[in-house]
Amino acid sequence: MTEVEARSATNRLHDQLEAIVEVLRRHEDDLLPAASQAQLRQQLDELHPADIAFILESLPLDERLAVWQLVKADRDGEILLEVSDAVRESLIADMDRHEILAAAETLDADELADLVEDLPTAMLPELMAGLDAQQREQVQSALSYEDDQLGALMDFEMVTIREDVSLEVVLRYLRRFDELPAQTDKLFVINHDNLLTGVLPLHWLLVNSPDKMVSEVMAPDVNTFHPTDDAYEVAQAFERYDLVTAPVVDERSHLIGRITIDAMVDVIREEGESEALSRGGLREEEDIFASVWASLKNRWSWLAVNLVTAFVASRVIGLFEDSIQKLVALATLMPIVAGIGGNSGNQTITMIVRALALNQITAESAKRLWRKELTVSLLNGLMWGGVIGIVAWLLYDSVSLGLVMTAAMTLNLLLAAFAGVGIPVLMTKFGRDPALGSSVLITAMTDSGGFFIFLGLATIFLV
Amino acid sequence: MTEVEARSATNRLHDQLEAIVEVLRRHEDDLLPAASQAQLRQQLDELHPADIAFILESLPLDERLAVWQLVKADRDGEILLEVSDAVRESLIADMDRHEILAAAETLDADELADLVEDLPTAMLPELMAGLDAQQREQVQSALSYEDDQLGALMDFEMVTIREDVSLEVVLRYLRRFDELPAQTDKLFVINHDNLLTGVLPLHWLLVNSPDKMVSEVMAPDVNTFHPTDDAYEVAQAFERYDLVTAPVVDERSHLIGRITIDAMVDVIREEGESEALSRGGLREEEDIFASVWASLKNRWSWLAVNLVTAFVASRVIGLFEDSIQKLVALATLMPIVAGIGGNSGNQTITMIVRALALNQITAESAKRLWRKELTVSLLNGLMWGGVIGIVAWLLYDSVSLGLVMTAAMTLNLLLAAFAGVGIPVLMTKFGRDPALGSSVLITAMTDSGGFFIFLGLATIFLV
Repeated sequence: MTEVEARSATNRLHDQLEAIVEVLRRHEDDLLPAASQAQLRQQLDELHPADIAFILESLPLDERLAVWQLVKADRDGEILLEVSDAVRESLIADMDRHEILAAAETLDADELADLVEDLPTAMLPELMAGLDAQQREQVQSALSYEDDQLGALMDFEMVTIREDVSLEVVLRYLRRFDELPAQTDKLFVINHDNLLTGVLPLHWLLVNSPDKMVSEVMAPDVNTFHPTDDAYEVAQAFERYDLVTAPVVDERSHLIGRITIDAMVDVIREEGESEALSRGGLREEEDIFASVWASLKNRWSWLAVNLVTAFVASRVIGLFEDSIQKLVALATLMPIVAGIGGNSGNQTITMIVRALALNQITAESAKRLWRKELTVSLLNGLMWGGVIGIVAWLLYDSVSLGLVMTAAMTLNLLLAAFAGVGIPVLMTKFGRDPALGSSVLITAMTDSGGFFIFLGLATIFLV
Repeated sequence: MTEVEARSATNRLHDQLEAIVEVLRRHEDDLLPAASQAQLRQQLDELHPADIAFILESLPLDERLAVWQLVKADRDGEILLEVSDAVRESLIADMDRHEILAAAETLDADELADLVEDLPTAMLPELMAGLDAQQREQVQSALSYEDDQLGALMDFEMVTIREDVSLEVVLRYLRRFDELPAQTDKLFVINHDNLLTGVLPLHWLLVNSPDKMVSEVMAPDVNTFHPTDDAYEVAQAFERYDLVTAPVVDERSHLIGRITIDAMVDVIREEGESEALSRGGLREEEDIFASVWASLKNRWSWLAVNLVTAFVASRVIGLFEDSIQKLVALATLMPIVAGIGGNSGNQTITMIVRALALNQITAESAKRLWRKELTVSLLNGLMWGGVIGIVAWLLYDSVSLGLVMTAAMTLNLLLAAFAGVGIPVLMTKFGRDPALGSSVLITAMTDSGGFFIFLGLATIFLV
């Protein structure tokens, strides 16, 4: 029995990374000597697969592969499950057919289904042939759902019991297991037809008298999901009701699998991340040590979209070149009008996208929101537009230029509010995720719109 | 025993919201008749507190307060814990002293600590006086930590056992509980000094023979945390090791509390959200039905920052007004240079901020990242800058204008890469969260920098 470490678990990991990096760096250009290899191998053996995944993700490609070679082959599978997609690709590319098959053998059906998409397609027949009939069916079932459906995340390992036995019998039954499936916090009660009739939380099994029957103690589980449910909505339910596991049933209430909190935590994190990546203009999560070529591919599509919108805005300015030539202050002031519109529009859209993601907007409330956002924009426009208008007046000694500036800012903020509510609501109506891309759309509108409004007003009133 | 619903749990909530909204709308301007009130009250009684919180958040203020009045007083406390900060404020503002004290009475010490910050300060003495000594101490302990420290999220309800008893004794001990603390997946083994000597997962209690001793079966828990640990780092550990609960100990390994997955899921979600809000230019989460005045306050600070940076960029352009007057195409093309720099810089910063949040960047790798990002930017600049350069050449029939455009875009992309790595690394070094505000900083640099580089080059080579 070792003593419990008084040291907190949060500091451990980065230290381990530093220690491993140090061993690797000591032999920068040469092969690692056998002694260092043995030392590293031992260090790695003691680590949790998720920690090894963290370390692999934190290393540049050459060092990453050096470490990967030192990991015991029977742990390859669980580590591949933990690393990010980009890093997984780089590891699999380094493995030969036998290594991949050996790694796959250590995994459950649902884990295998996660991995299959990243394996060379040519290997699939061989891989499937190595499974027994039930596993094969489970892998195929998991693969038959979309990535964002619950069915793709289901787990098939679970403990089921009958309702016509006593808790004593259940306790004895559980003692026959070597271990219970990870995260098990409740047992599923099914009848002879595999129909789910209720659940028995382990807590209730423990606090109730062993003489009681399962049917007396169990509860009908109202938190039951379908494999076609949207994974993110289920994750919200897990968060809302503090669930650890939940049964997944088909439309006739047959129990087909279960879903666990760790899969749902991943979904919650990924949802936040895909929004952050899209806002940041990245197509997908990027291995920080990706090759230059992989990075370029990941970033080109958004840069191209941005160039197109910038080009459109530039052509809008081009329409007013005569006015700018006559009054060059317009060129100086126009980015302010465009910028504040984009900023304000993004504020509105951020709030609306959040509310839509939580399903909190009804048809009735959309109207109210529009009214509120337009009012906020009007006040912001008069206030900040007024400030900048006065500054423009003082800088260029022209009251009318100041007035045009104030008017243009107010109008662009109103456009931003209108589009800030309208774009995400419309995207949702057409079945698209408003978190992805709506920020680019509104910025494009407030840029081109801002230039058009400001230069248009200036052409009418000033030039 | 009711039958298990075949209907998925995910659709239920929005339907309930719609049903309640409909009852409220039928009597838009009048008071609700007694019959409708009774019907609503019954509907609400059947809902989970988190569902009531969801409904309150989805309703405009007047309807929200109408529903709040119908909620049973003894549920007020648990519902206040579930709603967002902004909505909580609006509910508490509507409660009198007695109602608040009654709500507080139903809560545990750690829950009370969450709520206390939003209560009128004048009420605190009275509130604390109503607690017993242990509770008071626990509330004070929770309040003594920063919001982002684990201590603020600790839970004091847990089951502790001794190691010198058999599992049979533990099983009998547990049967004396009416219920186990929520989320309990392991028991904490302590000695007479309250020193944590290990943990006994419920799974192991269930699969092992009752004759075994706790000391034979228990494990030293390596996932032990301190109350001063950063909550987000602990949340990452929960995610990495698939934890459901973990003990919190002081520096001498005395058990002082525990932390549960539901609190950690909230931390993970909030971390993603605060980043999204900051990127969207909101100071804090906004009640979608907030008053216009509350919205203005939430948005002014970022708008003001944006106005200042836009004004600086505008003054940079102002330096070159003579050049623009001579060659008005410069005004038309300059937003493209600024825009692509901002976009590319945000791509870099998004990736670096993620890697920093995961603690994956070592001093060594920062150098590599800089090299990689500069290479990517150079290639992007030559490629996209080349395309836009050719377009500019064709539009304005000037090869030299095209060349200046290409050069300016490449240089601005290099600036974006340099700052995109440098800003978050520096912010981290000075102890600030790089997720907040770094996007505004880089956009400010690439805007002003882009205008300066492009107009400067044009002034030297073209005018």
